Amino acid sequence: GIATIDIKADEVGIVELCRDRQLPLHTFPSQLLRTISVPNPSAIVDAEVGTPSVAEAAALSAAKSQTLLVPKQIFRFPIENFDSQLEIQNQKGAVTIAIASSAQEYSDRTGKLLLVGTGPGELNQITPAASSAISSADAVIGYSLYIQLIDSLLQPHQIIEALPITQERQRAQRAIELANRGLTVAVVSSGDCGIYGMAGLVLEELHSQGWDGATPNVEIFPGISALQAAASRVGTPLMHDFCAISLSDLLTPWEAIEKRLVAAAAADFVTAIYNPRSQTRVQQLTIAKDIFLKYRHPNTPVAIVRSAYRQDEQIHLTTLEKLLDVPVDMLTTVLIGNQSTRTHANWMITPRGYFGTM
Amino acid sequence: GIATIDIKADEVGIVELCRDRQLPLHTFPSQLLRTISVPNPSAIVDAEVGTPSVAEAAALSAAKSQTLLVPKQIFRFPIENFDSQLEIQNQKGAVTIAIASSAQEYSDRTGKLLLVGTGPGELNQITPAASSAISSADAVIGYSLYIQLIDSLLQPHQIIEALPITQERQRAQRAIELANRGLTVAVVSSGDCGIYGMAGLVLEELHSQGWDGATPNVEIFPGISALQAAASRVGTPLMHDFCAISLSDLLTPWEAIEKRLVAAAAADFVTAIYNPRSQTRVQQLTIAKDIFLKYRHPNTPVAIVRSAYRQDEQIHLTTLEKLLDVPVDMLTTVLIGNQSTRTHANWMITPRGYFGTM
Repeated sequence: GIATIDIKADEVGIVELCRDRQLPLHTFPSQLLRTISVPNPSAIVDAEVGTPSVAEAAALSAAKSQTLLVPKQIFRFPIENFDSQLEIQNQKGAVTIAIASSAQEYSDRTGKLLLVGTGPGELNQITPAASSAISSADAVIGYSLYIQLIDSLLQPHQIIEALPITQERQRAQRAIELANRGLTVAVVSSGDCGIYGMAGLVLEELHSQGWDGATPNVEIFPGISALQAAASRVGTPLMHDFCAISLSDLLTPWEAIEKRLVAAAAADFVTAIYNPRSQTRVQQLTIAKDIFLKYRHPNTPVAIVRSAYRQDEQIHLTTLEKLLDVPVDMLTTVLIGNQSTRTHANWMITPRGYFGTM
Repeated sequence: GIATIDIKADEVGIVELCRDRQLPLHTFPSQLLRTISVPNPSAIVDAEVGTPSVAEAAALSAAKSQTLLVPKQIFRFPIENFDSQLEIQNQKGAVTIAIASSAQEYSDRTGKLLLVGTGPGELNQITPAASSAISSADAVIGYSLYIQLIDSLLQPHQIIEALPITQERQRAQRAIELANRGLTVAVVSSGDCGIYGMAGLVLEELHSQGWDGATPNVEIFPGISALQAAASRVGTPLMHDFCAISLSDLLTPWEAIEKRLVAAAAADFVTAIYNPRSQTRVQQLTIAKDIFLKYRHPNTPVAIVRSAYRQDEQIHLTTLEKLLDVPVDMLTTVLIGNQSTRTHANWMITPRGYFGTM
């Protein structure tokens, strides 16, 4: 790109050169340029335009660099009658050029962040919009297991960054970094990226970086969430008012989670429990069960679904009372019915309303 | 098909005939056959097998009909030495046949019910599994607006039944009727068919008809729900525990709905409101707003999304306090943030947890 002082923003020679070569033109106000430390400042230039350096300061500013590759050089048509620095500067056809090297490769494209929910993982359950977003991206970033599940959508030329599950914030920051360089970056989450997924984290990060809401451009592609995938495999448990509660207390005080469990149980919401158990978190599901037993019948139908739509799918229909008899891990979603939910021939059915009887 | 008494279920001649002609064989116990009123009962047959009629009673039972097309006829090889009815019955090569006409056309196929969520309506947001289900069906049944939105998936040979929005139960019954005749029937709902959609109603109906859970076969295809579609257009409001509450009190007592609104507001759930208003139901959203104002700051971000992903999409970001200033109808979903939800440059962002600050 080419950089100069803002009073040159409409100079025909510069504008036409940039247009011809498809180079971006950055212009900076003198107030900003005069803050840049340069090897060859000029008092004459300072007196003229309000900064001791134009070429060197603008090059360093645009490149976001502290080091010049080439210090300022004055190029001019071979005209004889000049006798002062000032005259050179004012001479028609004279141009002062300096070159700085940017740490980042130049791109004329505006970066994009495509925040993509890939659903349960089976290709048949990923929306075409989400599939296209993944295939069209320059880079795809996600937790390695979910990247594997969408392997067939990936393209040979793509940058693929499959990171461990713990490094969620790093994934978000890396995605934003690549988008800021002009790349189109797909950030994938299983389920719906906006439900306990990566989309929220990327927007949080953008917000903390003072994002203007437009550059990089953000588009969100919803996906079939874990609670929907689980529900569709066992029947229609979610036919009446429902809620989703994550039992992970890494980022939320347990008191807040417990308050929600009580509210959900007392107000008879069908309840989907995310993150019911991890290797270090084993007691929370027991507490949840005990809370629900205060408000619901022990025979309330419960579905425990692990890896819905995946090869290792496991489905158990059980009851609130016997909930803990079924193995549960971090890939499992637990669905607790409301007071009207019934089991019929291996199907879990929540009626639409409260007035009828099923 | 061919029908007879259950003690003939393994008779080689009958079994081979059915296999050769690909005819289904129905067999009935004598206790059932003897309850059928027939034109030509036989005391001799009754003494022999425990029912006064085999051929006529079995034909009527299998055809679910009260009228014989052809009364019983005895066919046999021309052998001379018989002298009693009993001997004819026992004669090798003799067969008694009656024919009844079924009200329903015969099909050797087992019916299927494909319960399909078509998401917000844009083809790009329908899972490939749901699209295939619709295209593969013999019949497609749904509310006329949603049938229109998926018009391009429909096939020329399909039975299309687009019914008014009010006739939900009729749609479910009609679908089951067609599936019982052996057809593959797709029942479409917008959003997720299992979230306030048709899937639950079809399972309720099947249950009330004494369904065995297998015939007709049922498969459920989840779709992007209205709350997900709405959320993805405004940012990531659903990143923390959330609930869905329908304000429609047609099938649920208003007291139950109000109890849930209080629980959701008090326990700080992000809340998606379905059916916020209809032509006859105008006060409920005001009550909901007043309940939330008791527990949440007046500036709590609220998104009001109508027809997400459709041509007439309308998005408003507002606050709890000003919620009623935005037009709302039955095609609108209202998303109320939790205490941490923030608006940033036209995006609605709910942080992942409570410990950080955004």
